Amino acid sequence: MVKTPEEEHPVKAFGWAARDTSGILSPFHFSRRETGEKDVKLKILYCGVCHSDLHSVKNETGRVTYPVLPGHEIAGVVTEIGSKVTKVKVGDKVGVGCMAGSCRSCENCANDLENYCSKMILTYRSKYFDGTPTYGGYSDIMVCDEHFVVCWPENMPLDAGCPLLCAGVTTYSPLKYFGLDKPGTHVGIIGLGGLGHAAVKFAKAFGAKVTVISTNPNKKDEAIKNLGVDSFLVSHDQDQMQAAAGTMDGILDTVSAHHPVQPLLNLLKPSGKLIILGVIPKPLELPVFPLLSGRKIVAGSGIGGMKETQEMIDFAAKHNITADVEVIPMNYINKAMERLEKADVKYRFVIDIAGTLKAE
Amino acid sequence: MVKTPEEEHPVKAFGWAARDTSGILSPFHFSRRETGEKDVKLKILYCGVCHSDLHSVKNETGRVTYPVLPGHEIAGVVTEIGSKVTKVKVGDKVGVGCMAGSCRSCENCANDLENYCSKMILTYRSKYFDGTPTYGGYSDIMVCDEHFVVCWPENMPLDAGCPLLCAGVTTYSPLKYFGLDKPGTHVGIIGLGGLGHAAVKFAKAFGAKVTVISTNPNKKDEAIKNLGVDSFLVSHDQDQMQAAAGTMDGILDTVSAHHPVQPLLNLLKPSGKLIILGVIPKPLELPVFPLLSGRKIVAGSGIGGMKETQEMIDFAAKHNITADVEVIPMNYINKAMERLEKADVKYRFVIDIAGTLKAE
Repeated sequence: MVKTPEEEHPVKAFGWAARDTSGILSPFHFSRRETGEKDVKLKILYCGVCHSDLHSVKNETGRVTYPVLPGHEIAGVVTEIGSKVTKVKVGDKVGVGCMAGSCRSCENCANDLENYCSKMILTYRSKYFDGTPTYGGYSDIMVCDEHFVVCWPENMPLDAGCPLLCAGVTTYSPLKYFGLDKPGTHVGIIGLGGLGHAAVKFAKAFGAKVTVISTNPNKKDEAIKNLGVDSFLVSHDQDQMQAAAGTMDGILDTVSAHHPVQPLLNLLKPSGKLIILGVIPKPLELPVFPLLSGRKIVAGSGIGGMKETQEMIDFAAKHNITADVEVIPMNYINKAMERLEKADVKYRFVIDIAGTLKAE
Repeated sequence: MVKTPEEEHPVKAFGWAARDTSGILSPFHFSRRETGEKDVKLKILYCGVCHSDLHSVKNETGRVTYPVLPGHEIAGVVTEIGSKVTKVKVGDKVGVGCMAGSCRSCENCANDLENYCSKMILTYRSKYFDGTPTYGGYSDIMVCDEHFVVCWPENMPLDAGCPLLCAGVTTYSPLKYFGLDKPGTHVGIIGLGGLGHAAVKFAKAFGAKVTVISTNPNKKDEAIKNLGVDSFLVSHDQDQMQAAAGTMDGILDTVSAHHPVQPLLNLLKPSGKLIILGVIPKPLELPVFPLLSGRKIVAGSGIGGMKETQEMIDFAAKHNITADVEVIPMNYINKAMERLEKADVKYRFVIDIAGTLKAE
């Protein structure tokens, strides 16, 4: 007999989930597995609202089974540990990011790149090893293999820190891997949302010169004054774009909508790197000549491995990097999703789970 | 008064040039500059017929001024040197590849990447510093700044070696730069023409496992028997392509026609690299998800700098790498172009300039 989400595991849990492509979230009773010998159980305190949560609840990526209970920027406190857990103890502050599992035996897993494991399990909208769906952090508790738990740095706030578990490592990892973490490097950032503003902060901490490229000239002041970016280009201003041609070592492109690539390639120096981070549904039109004539590359990057996620949050703590957040109550989530769709947030909503998620 | 090509320089020269978009080549009297103090004058002995010569004589790239005298895979013997030349002496065998000049002062030039200098001057179909057009190697003599002359290795044949000056360095350079020069690396090669067959030889010499991917199953035998490739995939055979999914560290794509990218990205391991070498006029359709989910990159690369070109030909000499060539007389060139268009050559035509180019 097929078990309902409410029956399949013994531990009662509660959160907010979407039931259909309207994407409207509402209270949802479900259950989680018992704490296994390598598992950590946590009380969730805060959970960030990632732009991909919005895609997922509406099934815009086309791979979703409802109900969808989103949330992969989770910060909380350990309430129980399995008998073989060594990484954390009860009472520790911890984080859980985008991943809940991986095969742990392939070449990628062996190289701390669980994020590229073909059997990687997402924190929500995946199936766990036992075939049951994974549910995310818009909920009261979480049970997670200790390997996928991040130890929380002492001076890192939970609310403003939790978005780093996705937006942080998604930008930190490519800056490191593609060699854009050197002082004096000139890094362009396309889009100033959750990812973009984290990218700016990490790039600045690495000592890079940072230019934000945006369609919206009104973002210039906030970018320069609040985030300390070095310069700002309006992408449809031909003169500005031409003046900056050939000046950038790399660009992190955080925009999830379809957009032209050629003007961005023009901004790159020879051997420059355009790194796509946004899930853009339609194929990009890639002109070949700028690649050939400048040995330029177009790359993609998705989150980061667990070792690097820990490294990222430790680096962030050391450099006082947090996300700029607007903390919201659980029952504001549908309004928050509407605002997120219009990019009306600076720069990340974070749900105060412990303070506002109430079972009826 | 505007000078004709026959008048502009004092040294009489003779070759074959195209006069219009028919691309038909015919005898052409012109002139070259006197040997300057840093110049090397050479008698041309052989010149390879690159696929881009075919594009150029028909102005398919849209940037050509007629007459076009092609040829940038030039091997010859020094007949005169300027007073300040130190690199070669009269009687030395030398080569001239795709470049005749560059600014020599920008960051790229300083880093031995003259090929990415924005003021780089092509051996033909460019304008030289004095504003006069450059003419290539389908001609009896050449005058070239010594910096752009390659010293010829003792045991390297001139006829089978000259194509390496373009096809060789165009494949050698990205194999090195993108880290595909390590023993045990699995390298895919798309297209088995002039570039493709050189790519196979260099990748094998580096110790890579080499797989050729082709639309034409008839090429399998020649690829395995003549070139020693390790495996062969027919690109439209879904089963073969699926079986090879996720196995390649990098792919050199030498095809100049528009083609789908997604099946090639599928062949790559995570962090794998698809490197485009062919001048593809239409933008490629680049799906983003495979980039994100595997940190894959799509890159381009164009020839190589002078230092690397010398390194390449010395490496080739050491490893007995030459191009497979069909040596033709000058007056066969129009027929050769027809055959090249149909990929009916294994794998490079080379014109016996000294033996067959006769002024009427």
